[in-house]
Amino acid sequence: MSVGVTFAKGFRASGVVAGIKKKVGLHDMTLLMADQPVPAAAVFTRNLVHAAPVVVCKDHLEKSQGKIQAIIVNSGCANAVTGEEGYQNALTMTRETAESVGCKPEEVLVMSTGVIGQQLPMKKVSAGIKLASQSLSSDGGADAALGIMTTDTKPKKAQTVISTSQGEVRIGGMAKGVGMIHPNMATLICIVTTDAVFAPEVLKKIVREVADQSFNRITVDGDTSTNDTFAVLASGASGITPDPEKFSAALLEVCTDLSKQILRDGEGATKLITLRVSGTKTDADATQIAKTIATSLLFKTAIYGKDANWGRVLAAAGRSGVEFDPELAELKFGNLKLVAGGQPLAFSEEAALEILSEPDLDVTLSVGHGKGSSEVWTCDLTHEYVSINAHYRT
Amino acid sequence: MSVGVTFAKGFRASGVVAGIKKKVGLHDMTLLMADQPVPAAAVFTRNLVHAAPVVVCKDHLEKSQGKIQAIIVNSGCANAVTGEEGYQNALTMTRETAESVGCKPEEVLVMSTGVIGQQLPMKKVSAGIKLASQSLSSDGGADAALGIMTTDTKPKKAQTVISTSQGEVRIGGMAKGVGMIHPNMATLICIVTTDAVFAPEVLKKIVREVADQSFNRITVDGDTSTNDTFAVLASGASGITPDPEKFSAALLEVCTDLSKQILRDGEGATKLITLRVSGTKTDADATQIAKTIATSLLFKTAIYGKDANWGRVLAAAGRSGVEFDPELAELKFGNLKLVAGGQPLAFSEEAALEILSEPDLDVTLSVGHGKGSSEVWTCDLTHEYVSINAHYRT
Repeated sequence: MSVGVTFAKGFRASGVVAGIKKKVGLHDMTLLMADQPVPAAAVFTRNLVHAAPVVVCKDHLEKSQGKIQAIIVNSGCANAVTGEEGYQNALTMTRETAESVGCKPEEVLVMSTGVIGQQLPMKKVSAGIKLASQSLSSDGGADAALGIMTTDTKPKKAQTVISTSQGEVRIGGMAKGVGMIHPNMATLICIVTTDAVFAPEVLKKIVREVADQSFNRITVDGDTSTNDTFAVLASGASGITPDPEKFSAALLEVCTDLSKQILRDGEGATKLITLRVSGTKTDADATQIAKTIATSLLFKTAIYGKDANWGRVLAAAGRSGVEFDPELAELKFGNLKLVAGGQPLAFSEEAALEILSEPDLDVTLSVGHGKGSSEVWTCDLTHEYVSINAHYRT
Repeated sequence: MSVGVTFAKGFRASGVVAGIKKKVGLHDMTLLMADQPVPAAAVFTRNLVHAAPVVVCKDHLEKSQGKIQAIIVNSGCANAVTGEEGYQNALTMTRETAESVGCKPEEVLVMSTGVIGQQLPMKKVSAGIKLASQSLSSDGGADAALGIMTTDTKPKKAQTVISTSQGEVRIGGMAKGVGMIHPNMATLICIVTTDAVFAPEVLKKIVREVADQSFNRITVDGDTSTNDTFAVLASGASGITPDPEKFSAALLEVCTDLSKQILRDGEGATKLITLRVSGTKTDADATQIAKTIATSLLFKTAIYGKDANWGRVLAAAGRSGVEFDPELAELKFGNLKLVAGGQPLAFSEEAALEILSEPDLDVTLSVGHGKGSSEVWTCDLTHEYVSINAHYRT
């Protein structure tokens, strides 16, 4: 069965070994192609320092009025902070891809991921584009997910089906990225395809909303990438325009699935942590508290150490900038109550250790009687994270 | 020669083993005493969740109109998130100290540092207060610096002399804290004494300014404590009121010295990093960029790995929220230029490795033609940081 970006009808994809990555034999280029130019929408990193491909993508979406036929991606080199030469290289990638698949350059999006500040090896990239276009297949979704990986240890794919009275609509996607992950920057690289019929402007609205509910809710290390891009292409091959709310929910399901796969594979991570904060005045307040906890090194290292150090959760909440009464705080790890009425409770260290030995941890914090609530996902901070990032370039 | 808090005239101090810390034989209580109630000023954590001693100190400074005779400190237990019982224990500490040294309870400040969320072992604390008051000595500054340590591997003391036409004025201090260190929260515990003559209100203004220029410029891990307190006592024993600007500069010298000692001893740190950012519109903009770089896990792990991964410096600057033109960015590690005009420069990896092998690293980033500039200090993020914080409670 076809998975990921070729799960929906109207798309072909490939993932090939172009020799960009230092390690021999690893997939490092991915091509996605629709049968013709189709409605597309994307959100990008809000980092001021953004890579050449991001500039080119924004420009092409505008020039093509949101109609895209192909996306070319390379891993192993981010083409970021590479100046005019890097910009020209990104343009060349879209031009050569357009020639290979038979569309206009502005109907091609380009994404790069990997080390910042190095120029692309363009001979290898050009050969890779040719190879990728020759390898396109309607069940190429699995290979495509391999070609976009960087420090990922597993490819990330997800898909779902929407049933309508007129028939089925399919959504499938792939994502990469396990470090430099943080909310509010259209994190990582994620490409989703669907065979639903939607105009570009409708798609754009849906993509923004879903990004806010999924990729903007996860953090690995608080750093934000220069290359983050989340793009959705709608081939219309099903002939069906589903109810937008139903479609949004299904797209969110796929993106949540991918988000959690990213955290489970977070650099060095041993645990997926779900933070639920409630009792604030607004949902935004709850999100702010949850994100502050999610980025606390002390919290993340304690969870790695299976230490129910709940004081660090309250200390992080206290510096979040959100006003609340600490005397109303209630805190649970899993089903184990640690704090009530702002006071520490006696708890069984064995019970805590059992909960903290699971691969998933739910942390539930209530800080008052307000109606605001939010959920944010993160992972723990480990020795392996330090090892991976101390020597990333070498 | 007397050092630290007993360097200035008019003070006695002691540091004793009270048995609060789990490990046998470690100093865990410190007492500082002035010959009579003297002008005092302090800044405290701005964390919403703050410890009982912080509440008591604020109250006592108000009640005593800024005249303090003694400071009692315990390490090994932070007395934070300990509810009414913890608050009463903090009051008891000031009352028993007042009885021992012969002053009013409101003329005593109290500080606690260590694990959050546990009640103080009050029998041991009471015995410790008695022992500490019997051990007071005019050269007790060295012992006093031992009694406030938590994960510190070295005691931190500094002192300086101001020469005036009327004679010498002395300033000396001690500090503790190597984790949960971040700007804007009057970080850590630091006590400075001087024999200058100053009214409490003048001292208060100076203390705020100096805190902003020193302790509010350092970050280990972005987390802020529930117990941070920086207090200055002025005995007036020199009989001299130095020029306030000259005094501020000397106090800043002591606090900068202590700040750098803290970073050199930062949890797991192998390197003191000085970040200089310039070319922004305002100094505040430069500080914001510098602090964003200083808290980037990816930057801090790269420096630990001796990897000149300059892309992470620009990526962090780009997400700082400060507007600048990346095309104007200039970046140096030590004297080695890595980026000019927003473009990466070819550089010698051997030269970079040499610079990154030193215990100190200067990172200089210019982002434009503005007059704003700032300096912030931090340390690297290491395997040892994770080890220390994964199992802090146990």
